[in-house]
Amino acid sequence: MSKPTLAQLQDFLRSEFPQSSVTLESISDSATWVRQKVDSTHLRPGGTVSGPVLMAVADVAMYLGLLAEIGIVPLAVTTNLSINFLRKPAADRDILGECRLLKVGKTLAVGEVSLYSEGDTEPVAHVVCTYAIPPPK
Amino acid sequence: MSKPTLAQLQDFLRSEFPQSSVTLESISDSATWVRQKVDSTHLRPGGTVSGPVLMAVADVAMYLGLLAEIGIVPLAVTTNLSINFLRKPAADRDILGECRLLKVGKTLAVGEVSLYSEGDTEPVAHVVCTYAIPPPK
Amino acid sequence: MSKPTLAQLQDFLRSEFPQSSVTLESISDSATWVRQKVDSTHLRPGGTVSGPVLMAVADVAMYLGLLAEIGIVPLAVTTNLSINFLRKPAADRDILGECRLLKVGKTLAVGEVSLYSEGDTEPVAHVVCTYAIPPPK
Amino acid sequence: MSKPTLAQLQDFLRSEFPQSSVTLESISDSATWVRQKVDSTHLRPGGTVSGPVLMAVADVAMYLGLLAEIGIVPLAVTTNLSINFLRKPAADRDILGECRLLKVGKTLAVGEVSLYSEGDTEPVAHVVCTYAIPPPK
Repeated sequence: MSKPTLAQLQDFLRSEFPQSSVTLESISDSATWVRQKVDSTHLRPGGTVSGPVLMAVADVAMYLGLLAEIGIVPLAVTTNLSINFLRKPAADRDILGECRLLKVGKTLAVGEVSLYSEGDTEPVAHVVCTYAIPPPK
Repeated sequence: MSKPTLAQLQDFLRSEFPQSSVTLESISDSATWVRQKVDSTHLRPGGTVSGPVLMAVADVAMYLGLLAEIGIVPLAVTTNLSINFLRKPAADRDILGECRLLKVGKTLAVGEVSLYSEGDTEPVAHVVCTYAIPPPK
Repeated sequence: MSKPTLAQLQDFLRSEFPQSSVTLESISDSATWVRQKVDSTHLRPGGTVSGPVLMAVADVAMYLGLLAEIGIVPLAVTTNLSINFLRKPAADRDILGECRLLKVGKTLAVGEVSLYSEGDTEPVAHVVCTYAIPPPK
Repeated sequence: MSKPTLAQLQDFLRSEFPQSSVTLESISDSATWVRQKVDSTHLRPGGTVSGPVLMAVADVAMYLGLLAEIGIVPLAVTTNLSINFLRKPAADRDILGECRLLKVGKTLAVGEVSLYSEGDTEPVAHVVCTYAIPPPK
C-alpha cells in the first residue's frame, strides 16, 4: 500500500473520528505532529489538561504516524499504551504531539509520542504505544 | 485521615469531576467498582467503546480506589498509566471497572484496574496505574 | 496442540533454559507458580534481590504459564514487559512468582505475574507481560 | 550535590555493582551510554541476547544517567520499568544502551533507554524507566 498524503490522512481523520478535535499538522519520514486545541472541556480541577485528553491525543498521534507509514489501514488497533505524566500542562495553550515510530513489523508496530504544551520544549507527557496490524486479505 | 464513606466519595466525584459521567458503585477493603454508562458519544468506528474512554474510566477507578483507602486527598496525581486492550467492548453495555490496590506507600500508590463490559467475566482491558501522593502539610 | 503436563514443562524448562535456576512449582487452570531459589548472586547492594532477577523470574513465569495453556511453542517471544517494584524483597527467602493469563489470542497473549518473597502475602513486584505467538505452520 | 565525573561514576559502578559487567562509556548533558560485552552466558535459545540481560542493561543505563545528573545518590530505586522488545539482538555483538532523561523531579525521575546491537542504527529494545529519589537528609 502506498503512503498517504497529508491531505488524505486529514480527510481520513475527519471522516473516521468526527468526535475528535485533534488535527494533523505535518508528516515526515521521522515524525508526525498533531494538535489538540485546548478549551474548557479539556481541563480538570486545578486548571490543567486532563490525563484522558492527553492519552487520546497520543493515541491519535500514534495511529496517524503509523498510517502515514503503512498506508490507511482502518483496522489497526491499539494493544498497549503506557503514559508517563511529566509536567503540568498549561490550561491556555494547545497540546502538540510528536509521534516517532520505533518499529513497524508485519503484525505489530511500536512508537513513542511526546506531548507538549505549545511553546515549551520540555514534554508534559511521554507515551509508548503498540498497535496490532491486521494481516492483508 | 479517616476513610471516606461511599456517599462522601460520590459527592467528591460529582463536585470535582462534573464533566465525568463515571459513577461510583461500591467500595470495600479489597476492591472499588465504578460504572461508565455507555452512549453513542463513547463509541468509535466499528461500534466499540473507544480506548480513551476506557483509559478515563480506569483513571477514575484508581483515583477513587486510592481515596477510599487514604482519605480524600484531592492533589494526588497520576504519574503512570499502562493499559492493555484485551477484547472488543460491547457497544450497548456499560463499562464496569474494578480497582485493586497493589501498594499504598507514603509517596506512591500502585493499583490495577480490570475493565469489563457489563455481564462478561473476561476483561476488555487491564490497567496498571501509579499515583503520586502529596506529602501532608 | 494439547496442554503439557507439569513434568513436560519442567523438562522443557531444564533443556531450553539450562542457565536459569527458576523451577516450575505447579500449574492449574487459573495460575502457574514458579520459584527462584535466592542466593548471594541474586542480591544487590542493600541486601535485596536485584530488579533484573525479578524481571527474569516474571518472564519465565509468564512463558511457562502461556505454554501450559497453548502447548509447548518454543518460538513465543516477549514483546512487552512492564514491572512495578512494590516492596523490598527479603534477601534470605526465595522468590515465588504467580502467573495469571489475562488473554490468550491467536497472535498475542497477555498475563500478569505477582512476585512474592516466600511467606509474605504482599507482592514485592507486579508484572504485566505480552507474548507474541508465532502462527502455526 | 555536584555532578560526578565519568571516572567517578565508573568507580561507583565497579564498587557498587561488582557482579555487573556493564561498563559506562560516556556521559553528556543529553545522553549516557553504556556497554554490555556479550558472551555465551548472555544468550538464550535461538542465539540471541536474553530479555533479562537487556532489562538489566537498561536499568543500569538509567541509573547511571540519573546519577550523572543528580549526583551519586546510592539509594535511588527503580519503581517502574517497561520494555518493548523490537528486534532480535545479534549474538556476536555487544549491546549499547543510550539513556535520555525525560524528567528529573524532586522525588521521581523518568528516562528512556534505547538498546542497540553495536553497529546497528535501529534499536533492539526500548525502555521507559522511573526511579524514586530519596529525600535529602
